[in-house]
Amino acid sequence: MSMVKVCAFSVSLDGFGAGSRQDIQNPLGVRGLELHDWFFNTVVFKKMHGLTGGSQGIDNDFAARSFDNVGAWILGRNMFGPIRGPWADDSWRGWWGEEPPYHVPVFVLTHYARPPLRMEGGTTFFFVTEGAEAALQEAKAAAHGQDVRIGGGVATIRHYLTAGDIDELHLAFSPVVLGEGEHLFTGIHLPNLGFKPVQTTAGEQATHVILQRC
Amino acid sequence: MSMVKVCAFSVSLDGFGAGSRQDIQNPLGVRGLELHDWFFNTVVFKKMHGLTGGSQGIDNDFAARSFDNVGAWILGRNMFGPIRGPWADDSWRGWWGEEPPYHVPVFVLTHYARPPLRMEGGTTFFFVTEGAEAALQEAKAAAHGQDVRIGGGVATIRHYLTAGDIDELHLAFSPVVLGEGEHLFTGIHLPNLGFKPVQTTAGEQATHVILQRC
Repeated sequence: MSMVKVCAFSVSLDGFGAGSRQDIQNPLGVRGLELHDWFFNTVVFKKMHGLTGGSQGIDNDFAARSFDNVGAWILGRNMFGPIRGPWADDSWRGWWGEEPPYHVPVFVLTHYARPPLRMEGGTTFFFVTEGAEAALQEAKAAAHGQDVRIGGGVATIRHYLTAGDIDELHLAFSPVVLGEGEHLFTGIHLPNLGFKPVQTTAGEQATHVILQRC
Repeated sequence: MSMVKVCAFSVSLDGFGAGSRQDIQNPLGVRGLELHDWFFNTVVFKKMHGLTGGSQGIDNDFAARSFDNVGAWILGRNMFGPIRGPWADDSWRGWWGEEPPYHVPVFVLTHYARPPLRMEGGTTFFFVTEGAEAALQEAKAAAHGQDVRIGGGVATIRHYLTAGDIDELHLAFSPVVLGEGEHLFTGIHLPNLGFKPVQTTAGEQATHVILQRC
């Protein structure tokens, strides 16, 4: 059964999935990077970025699992870049350089049309202007029976959660409090949406929780 | 150095410290008891209630630690009982029977005066009508150099947090989502109040986090 899933999504103890004041210097908002320390230290992350070393433990296992069986991604526009409003030109090609770590079709939610952007290593960015549900249908078709991973950000996950589209959430709670930023759950009633935690595992630098719709 | 502290306070993954709709059947609100499963299974809890058995591991260590060096407690009125408004009479003597598990002075925040209530085993309930800061001063004096433990509930902890009175918070994150209830942190900026997590430990049934004001 193919799933729509959120994987390895980092949150603070006080529930923030990103810091405040995102810009080109702070792609994840102020202090947002701290949420992901557990991931940055893994072999999986380092290898993805052409580096050696990294940790091999539980955090790394969850990082690896987050890329299993993913046939397509969906990203909110802010995950793709810091530009707001119309695309001035096609010079922005994502945060990740010429070979992004996706290697499958990636559907970017935006209000502004742009031709698909074919990158090295199998990633193609498609810019979807017909809304989140249209993007999900396109992603499911492109995934050819594999899973669709909702990459974020917070607003995008909140949208698909509330719409009842998500089957599984893997959250990584980092030992950090932010106090401000984008809150993942405010106003979202997970039990009413059918979710409950089915697994909790302490990693080296984060606590991994799997929630499923039952 | 004596501290003002919150210990073994259970919260859901989505940040609720109590369920909704507290009443005499649901002293912790609907589903609120689930937050405390980790505690109910410990030797410390069972012994406190005259029972044998229980788990001896990390959760139990944190339960035991939560009673160390406590010279006085402060409780919001809803922690003391389900009665709202004026006391009809003195028949309500707390949720805990004739020998409550405190064994020290306990200061209950209320708008309605009532004579102190001396229980078995060293617990005396004092009903403080002069406000939270007055209660804190009385509790510090009564603690004779030991720590003051703020027992809860959520509104009481939020008050003392915001006032800058709390030195240390030990939270037990339970693998539960509630979706509604009393949220511990909404609108509270822990970093601006000086808090950061200094320890995270996975217990058998909860993840224990210590936050300190630095």
